Amino acid sequence: MKELIIAINSGSSSLKFQVYEFPEEKMIAKGLFERIGLATSMDLTYSLDEAKNRRSVEGETHEDAVKFLLEFLLEQKIVADLSEITGVGHRVAHGGEFFKGSCLVDDEALEKIKSLAHLAPLHNPINIMGIEAFKNNLPACPQVAVFDTSFHQTMPEENFLYPIPYHLYEEEGIRRFGFHGTSHQYVAAEAAKSLGKNVEDLKIISCHLGNGGSICAIKNGRSVITSMGFTPLAGIMMGTRCGDIDPSIVTYLGREKQMSFAEIEQMMNQESGFKGVSGISSDARDIEEAFEQGNPKAILAMNMFCGRVKQTIGSYAAELGGLDVLIFTAGIGENSPIIRQLACEGLSFFGVTVDEQRNNSRQSMISQEDGQVAVMVVPTNEERMIVRETNQLIAN
Amino acid sequence: MKELIIAINSGSSSLKFQVYEFPEEKMIAKGLFERIGLATSMDLTYSLDEAKNRRSVEGETHEDAVKFLLEFLLEQKIVADLSEITGVGHRVAHGGEFFKGSCLVDDEALEKIKSLAHLAPLHNPINIMGIEAFKNNLPACPQVAVFDTSFHQTMPEENFLYPIPYHLYEEEGIRRFGFHGTSHQYVAAEAAKSLGKNVEDLKIISCHLGNGGSICAIKNGRSVITSMGFTPLAGIMMGTRCGDIDPSIVTYLGREKQMSFAEIEQMMNQESGFKGVSGISSDARDIEEAFEQGNPKAILAMNMFCGRVKQTIGSYAAELGGLDVLIFTAGIGENSPIIRQLACEGLSFFGVTVDEQRNNSRQSMISQEDGQVAVMVVPTNEERMIVRETNQLIAN
Repeated sequence: MKELIIAINSGSSSLKFQVYEFPEEKMIAKGLFERIGLATSMDLTYSLDEAKNRRSVEGETHEDAVKFLLEFLLEQKIVADLSEITGVGHRVAHGGEFFKGSCLVDDEALEKIKSLAHLAPLHNPINIMGIEAFKNNLPACPQVAVFDTSFHQTMPEENFLYPIPYHLYEEEGIRRFGFHGTSHQYVAAEAAKSLGKNVEDLKIISCHLGNGGSICAIKNGRSVITSMGFTPLAGIMMGTRCGDIDPSIVTYLGREKQMSFAEIEQMMNQESGFKGVSGISSDARDIEEAFEQGNPKAILAMNMFCGRVKQTIGSYAAELGGLDVLIFTAGIGENSPIIRQLACEGLSFFGVTVDEQRNNSRQSMISQEDGQVAVMVVPTNEERMIVRETNQLIAN
Repeated sequence: MKELIIAINSGSSSLKFQVYEFPEEKMIAKGLFERIGLATSMDLTYSLDEAKNRRSVEGETHEDAVKFLLEFLLEQKIVADLSEITGVGHRVAHGGEFFKGSCLVDDEALEKIKSLAHLAPLHNPINIMGIEAFKNNLPACPQVAVFDTSFHQTMPEENFLYPIPYHLYEEEGIRRFGFHGTSHQYVAAEAAKSLGKNVEDLKIISCHLGNGGSICAIKNGRSVITSMGFTPLAGIMMGTRCGDIDPSIVTYLGREKQMSFAEIEQMMNQESGFKGVSGISSDARDIEEAFEQGNPKAILAMNMFCGRVKQTIGSYAAELGGLDVLIFTAGIGENSPIIRQLACEGLSFFGVTVDEQRNNSRQSMISQEDGQVAVMVVPTNEERMIVRETNQLIAN
């Protein structure tokens, strides 16, 4: 009998799935439901091999999508019986301080995840809908929650606390959480593996650069600091997010320009970053194209983005007391040689080098032959990490 | 005939002066008027040699203080005639984008400084009172404005702009300004001089750590980035200021906790930093004492402060592409061996070392004999820099 584990990532109007066969950890199907709740039917794109397929699916809730998915797995003979699905792993945005790692979702855990909704009001409730849909339709199958935050729970107090009144931590829970934990953990492990080293023996900086982006310093296999904070707004400049700015700008806009908290939040999250600086696009690919054509605002946006990444790398190398491995991952990190190059420029004084030919030819090791720091491009795969975590927890 | 230049720093209820003789650049008198405007008299402390003297002075305005000062200089025979005062240099908090350097204050310049009051509402108007008091009482004497911001006007666009919508720069003037410019410029020049090098040939990081604190990266003698921002709240943790935090914390406290913009501003400026974290004091000396005694909150506050300074040093070394000189200055930077030590811990991977014995014995060079980076303690002296700038401008 097959052993299959499904990774689920529920969004507000979407549900992404990947099906893996164990113990081989081989991906055998993946797909994405979109436009959930926007009409009486939703769109499904899926692939079982190379080819991409599309179809329309009746229904309007995440639960309808899950029901269809289970029927579909039977219909496509991916499973002979639903009992072959030995576990479902769910990406959950926020585990607060409670979840220090992934966990089997019993009633208590589900309540706890619900109680953290104020920390991720746009994400946790949707993640819970995904979990509940599987509980209802596959009640015997263990569900696992894999949190975006839990990898960062190893940060020391001096790095997760803000220099604001201590009672705001004790009473309001305001602290740095960090996100993209699954990705940072995955690429660090993959990099160590491909170097033939133990992740515990390496000082690693992982740059997850996508539309959202964060950088993480990893020592002894543990996150010691990361650039996102109490929320995913903080840290480096992103597609539409500003990252760290003088917090007085917020109060200045409120006091002097009569902007409301909600308007400022919207501006910082949706109208800033690449989009706000360039006026061209939030997509790094568009910015890169305009940069190549000499557009001044695109050049500015690129220099700002790469400068902030570089400064954060320097900052985290200082925190780690040196650096062995520098990783680039996610949409931009995996696909933009020019951004990798600019972000590493001038860092040879602590061993960071980029070999132009390797960087441009999609190799995984892009540092120069004699570079002391291994500079690597490692494709992230949060779904694979989710099924890995799930497999481990259901085996225990 | 003597040539004397006076440096003036006007605060809300204070006026600080230092009198220098030129061309020797020798300080011959200094003093501080306090409690201005709080009663019908004010307090003056002054010293003409080693001894400190106190007296009460009739009057209740900054102009009264200036009038008394001029009489006092005659009475004490520091000047035989007021025409011996060849210039007065004023510290001015904010020069905006307009003032790229110090300037002689004519009517136009004074209007311009007034028009920048919205950027430094607590400081520029007071600085103007000091200038006007001298204009009224010493009309023939040239006045010079030395700005806290102007040294940082050399920052490149990618470092002075925030990744927020570009129109907020164009229309509202929101950008990084940076402060403590006079201090950063002074200690960089002094460090280069004592190394027998040209400041233009050095990569320098200057850590001005006082009750307020900022760090500056200096290349070719010019500021390329600094940690304070649009306001002096930004950057590293300070005595009562939080420095950089996730800007969403501001909007979260507004939306979820119904705090007003003014309340949040007050919290970030007055209740944070050493004070907010430790609950003990905003004064680094008190924190250090409690730290030595093993107080957990003091240990936490020290680790947070030193960690943020260290991370900023790493960040700015990356920006500079290496480092030749690391300077500590101001109250904490000049007087706390333990903070200098903790802030440099683990930075030997790019040549930063601290010799324990040198660090503890108040030497100016505290790096180890074989350290690649010159780590130095350089006492700051903004007044000396102000009279230097004044002397240069009145000579032209």
